[in-house]
Amino acid sequence: MIHPDHKNTPMTTLTQSVLAGDRLSLARALTQVENNTLAGQKILDALFPYTGKAHLIGITGAPGTGKSTLVNQLALSFRKLEKRVAIVAVDPSSPFTGGAVLGDRVRMRDLSGDPGVFIRSMATRGSLGGLAQATVKIVQVFDAAGYDVVIIETVGAGQSEVDVARLAHTTIVVEAPGLGDDIQAIKAGILEIADILVINKADHPGTESTEAALRNMLELSHPVQKVFRHHDQTLSLAEPNPEKNPVTQSVDLWIPPICRTVATEGKGLPALMEAIQNHLAYLHKFGDWVARDQARLFSEFDLMLQSSLLEDFRARIPAGKIEQVKNSLQNRQISPQEAVNVLLNINRL
Amino acid sequence: MIHPDHKNTPMTTLTQSVLAGDRLSLARALTQVENNTLAGQKILDALFPYTGKAHLIGITGAPGTGKSTLVNQLALSFRKLEKRVAIVAVDPSSPFTGGAVLGDRVRMRDLSGDPGVFIRSMATRGSLGGLAQATVKIVQVFDAAGYDVVIIETVGAGQSEVDVARLAHTTIVVEAPGLGDDIQAIKAGILEIADILVINKADHPGTESTEAALRNMLELSHPVQKVFRHHDQTLSLAEPNPEKNPVTQSVDLWIPPICRTVATEGKGLPALMEAIQNHLAYLHKFGDWVARDQARLFSEFDLMLQSSLLEDFRARIPAGKIEQVKNSLQNRQISPQEAVNVLLNINRL
Repeated sequence: MIHPDHKNTPMTTLTQSVLAGDRLSLARALTQVENNTLAGQKILDALFPYTGKAHLIGITGAPGTGKSTLVNQLALSFRKLEKRVAIVAVDPSSPFTGGAVLGDRVRMRDLSGDPGVFIRSMATRGSLGGLAQATVKIVQVFDAAGYDVVIIETVGAGQSEVDVARLAHTTIVVEAPGLGDDIQAIKAGILEIADILVINKADHPGTESTEAALRNMLELSHPVQKVFRHHDQTLSLAEPNPEKNPVTQSVDLWIPPICRTVATEGKGLPALMEAIQNHLAYLHKFGDWVARDQARLFSEFDLMLQSSLLEDFRARIPAGKIEQVKNSLQNRQISPQEAVNVLLNINRL
Repeated sequence: MIHPDHKNTPMTTLTQSVLAGDRLSLARALTQVENNTLAGQKILDALFPYTGKAHLIGITGAPGTGKSTLVNQLALSFRKLEKRVAIVAVDPSSPFTGGAVLGDRVRMRDLSGDPGVFIRSMATRGSLGGLAQATVKIVQVFDAAGYDVVIIETVGAGQSEVDVARLAHTTIVVEAPGLGDDIQAIKAGILEIADILVINKADHPGTESTEAALRNMLELSHPVQKVFRHHDQTLSLAEPNPEKNPVTQSVDLWIPPICRTVATEGKGLPALMEAIQNHLAYLHKFGDWVARDQARLFSEFDLMLQSSLLEDFRARIPAGKIEQVKNSLQNRQISPQEAVNVLLNINRL
């Protein structure tokens, strides 16, 4: 491992221990980072050059789909391939969210004492938006610490969970039979982010109709199977102008496969693992690995910059002034642009 | 009409003519506002206190659904009720977008010379995000100018059009038979914003199956028909804690009705008009009119504030510096937080 000489941040002992694989140091670092302390930020800055290697797998699904059991089985499967696995559980509805301790204990029955597995349950204090930001950082720590696979487990209900799932290279959406008529089960926004669909509890009645419903929705949302990438990196259905913008690559679009599993018995796991490996190969072949990595980094950067600017701005505005201006706006005494101008002018005085 | 004494902006002659109902002045004001000139901003500021009265109706649908014909029929129906109607066409795929002139001419066959109707086609130059912002402002001008109904017509394909539709109090999604198997036709994101669904061209084959498909998707996305509003304005399915947070209102959720029309023959228009009036009554009864108005204003304000801050910030950063920092970020030489800090520090020097 190369020491990053270009970094200005001094390498602390804790950071070095994390990179060396010390579990206790890793746990301490995660706590600092999750609590968003200054030490945590320094650790992140020092670890950041070592990130970008882990395969980030998001798993989302409604409560009752057996998602957590499936995550445990996946971790065991990756262990058989000698991959180091981190699990980040972001699930307000899960029994694990009583806190990291309970979650760790329950899971440890299957994964106990394996030094190649690390499980972290995210505390759900604060806003879900804040939770998503904290999750990004926790994932970066595991990535730098050399975990080959980071599984991010979220409950599939709402935009913030979708945001968390978007962190991933590969997103798995878990369904269960009998939930087929429920909005939670085939929420279209969730389907759109799925790279792989899993019907867990596939020994239950209703599996056929759930698969038929999913296959139907997949066909609706994936009418096209092949596109062309042009010289300027744009994608198109056809080859509109071969002279001005030649086609550089024919891209097979990824059609999410549907896997049936019975996680409690480990059934269907080999096929699911194969689907995950296929998707990873696909990402590398068609450049999506780099694209998703860059999009993730830039979006994190943009959010941080915007919130820093807004924070700086608010700190310089007298207390209550923003609410007062919004009140005038709502009463239509001033226009939106005038409201902004009032605030900007206060700040320039 | 009360003169807004609390405004600092001097009332220009043009603004006064707009308020007095002069069509030529209105056209001039719209052009200034759409082009985002300083004069346009001053006009908007002066008109803003007169806004908030018009019923904003968004109409969206895929090309080929007969959306524009339906809009014309709706305008005629509102005219029979002696309502003044403005139509804002935001539709890159429509024949009207050849420019305002062509659009006005084609439409004028039905609505010609009626001083109670004003049609404006939005130019599609610039980004769709910019188009959405310009549309907000154009709608405000019509609102202030005393139009009772403002119909915002957009093509249903993409997030930006969804944003435009979100401006509206009442959003109508238009489908046509035979498009039922097409992703454009029942794009879930569009369905979620629909207050009223219309199957136009309902004399064509396939109407039954399109209606069945829509009804099926509606049932999936509206499993609940009644919720409770609590003392703190939150909504819930049940009454979790009557002592701490008592229920103040039982709210019947709005289930989008499905209307069949044949717009070319004016068929089905009375039922559609009734659905629109029912939705308007619903908005007033359950407070959504005020809530949507406030949400729209605050979101416009937030976007303006954020973009003003970012603009100010970028103007003070040396050219190319942001790209340089993003490049270091992508190469993992600096972390996202360090990237933000580098930029903020440049700015503080």
